[in-house]
Amino acid sequence: MIENAVGDARSVLKDLAPMAAGARVIGLTGAPGAGKSTVTGALVRVFRERGERVAVLAVDPTSPFSGGALLGDRVRMQEHATDPGVFIRSMGSRGQLGGLAAATPQAVRVLDAAGFGVILIETVGVGQAEVEIASAADTTAVLVVPGMGDSVQAAKAGLLEVADVLVVNKADRPETQHTVRDLRSMVALSAAPWRPPVVTTVATSGEGIDELVRQLDRHWTWLADSGERARRRLARARDEVTALAFGAVRARLAVPDELAARVADGRLGPYEAADELLASVGI
Amino acid sequence: MIENAVGDARSVLKDLAPMAAGARVIGLTGAPGAGKSTVTGALVRVFRERGERVAVLAVDPTSPFSGGALLGDRVRMQEHATDPGVFIRSMGSRGQLGGLAAATPQAVRVLDAAGFGVILIETVGVGQAEVEIASAADTTAVLVVPGMGDSVQAAKAGLLEVADVLVVNKADRPETQHTVRDLRSMVALSAAPWRPPVVTTVATSGEGIDELVRQLDRHWTWLADSGERARRRLARARDEVTALAFGAVRARLAVPDELAARVADGRLGPYEAADELLASVGI
Repeated sequence: MIENAVGDARSVLKDLAPMAAGARVIGLTGAPGAGKSTVTGALVRVFRERGERVAVLAVDPTSPFSGGALLGDRVRMQEHATDPGVFIRSMGSRGQLGGLAAATPQAVRVLDAAGFGVILIETVGVGQAEVEIASAADTTAVLVVPGMGDSVQAAKAGLLEVADVLVVNKADRPETQHTVRDLRSMVALSAAPWRPPVVTTVATSGEGIDELVRQLDRHWTWLADSGERARRRLARARDEVTALAFGAVRARLAVPDELAARVADGRLGPYEAADELLASVGI
Repeated sequence: MIENAVGDARSVLKDLAPMAAGARVIGLTGAPGAGKSTVTGALVRVFRERGERVAVLAVDPTSPFSGGALLGDRVRMQEHATDPGVFIRSMGSRGQLGGLAAATPQAVRVLDAAGFGVILIETVGVGQAEVEIASAADTTAVLVVPGMGDSVQAAKAGLLEVADVLVVNKADRPETQHTVRDLRSMVALSAAPWRPPVVTTVATSGEGIDELVRQLDRHWTWLADSGERARRRLARARDEVTALAFGAVRARLAVPDELAARVADGRLGPYEAADELLASVGI
C-alpha cells in the first residue's frame, strides 16, 4: 500500500507511527557491481547471530519495478530466504507519492513497527537521488571496488559526502592498497567530527566483515554519544514530510495546453508561465 | 546565469523566448562507457560538413559540477575545440531552480536563440531523471554496447521507452549480432507509430555513422510529417514550466523543527504533517 500509495496508506502510517521502536537503519550504497548484495548478505548473518530480526530493503531508483526480491538478490541471499527472522523486499521508483524520498522512510517505519531491530537499505549509488536514499539511514556505508578512478568516480557522484564507513570490497584485487590510500587521503581532508574509517572486505569469503561490523557499531555508538542520532532522525522526518507535501503539490500542478503553447512558440517566458500556473491554482 | 539560477536569468529567458528559431535537438544517452562522446563527436563532424552551427550540451546528473567541458570530453572533441561553429558545455546537477528538468530546456532555448541549428544533448543514462533529460530532445538516440544483458539493463532503466533510434556502438565486438537481435525483438513488440531502427556503429573508426545520420534524418522528417514534432515541443515547454513552478514551491516548503520532531518520535503521522506544512504556507 505504501509503495504504491494505494488504499489507506495514510491512516496505516498514522496508526503505525507510535509503534516504531527506533530500529537501527544501515544504508549500503555503491556503483553497480560493487558487491552490495553480498556484503548485505554477510551483515544479515552477523546480526542474525546476535539475535536481531533483520529487514533488507533493496531500493533500485533505476528500476520501475517494485515487489519481492530481484532474482539476483534471491540467489545471493538464499541462505536467509527461509529464515522467518529475515525480511527481504525490493522497491522500484514508480507509484509513490513523493517518490523514493518519501517511500523509503515510510517503509522503514513499517518495518520498525513490525519488530525488525535492524533495517538494511541497499541502493545503487549512481546519482544524487540515490545519495538521498542512503542518507535516510542512521549509518551509511559506501562500497567501492579497487581500481583506478573508482574512488574519484565515487567522489564525483557525491558518495563520499554521505559515507560514514567506506568499504573497499573485492579487496583481493591488486589495486586495493592504491584505492585505500586514495580514500584515506580524501577522508583526511575532512574537518567533520566523524571521519569515515576505510575498511577492506572480500565479502564472498567473509574476509573483513567482522571489522566492518566493528566500525558500524562504533559509528552507532558515536551517533548516540554525539547527539547526531537524534539530529539525523529529525532530518529524516523532515525530508519525508517535505517529499509528501511536495508530492501533493505536484499533483495539482498540471500545465494547461494553452499555457505550454505560449511558452513553446516564444510568446511567454518560462518563469512568467510558472507564475501564472501557480496563481491559477491559488499558490 | 541559467545554470546557477543567479542574476536575472528570468528576464534573460523572457527576452530570448521570441528569438528561438526552432533548432533541431538530438539527445544521446546510454550507460557510462557506451561511447557517447565519440558518437557525439562524429555527429558534430557530419552536421558541420552540412554547414550547421552545432552546440553540444553534456549533462551529467551524477556530477555536482557545471561549466566548461570535462577533460575526457575535451580530448575526444579536440578536433572541434577551436571551431567557432561548435560550442561545447558541460552541465552538472546542482544549483538550478527546478533541477536539470528545467535547466536543460532553458539551455536549449539560449543555444537556439544564439543561432545553433543543431543542439546535441549528451547525458549518462542511469535512471529516470536522465531519461527525462533525454526526452527533452526532438529525437533521442540510445546507445548500448554489445554484451549479454546490456539490452535488458537498458530496458530495465527505461531507456528503450524513450529511444527513437537505437545504436549498438562498439559493433566490432563478438556479441554484436546477439544484442542487435535482442533489441529488434524488443522493438517488434511495440505498437507505437514510430518503431526505433537499430543501427550498428564503431564510432572510433566512423563506421555506421552515415547510417545513424540517415536514421536521425528520417526520424526528423517523420516528426514533422506526423505532427509529433509540435507535440514534443509542447510537452517540453510543459515540463519546463512544471519544473520551475515546482522549484518555486519547494523553496517555500521548509519543515519547522517542531513539526519534524513530532513525526520523528511518532506523535504525528507523516501525511498529517505534510497537510499541516502546506496549510501553514497557505497552499
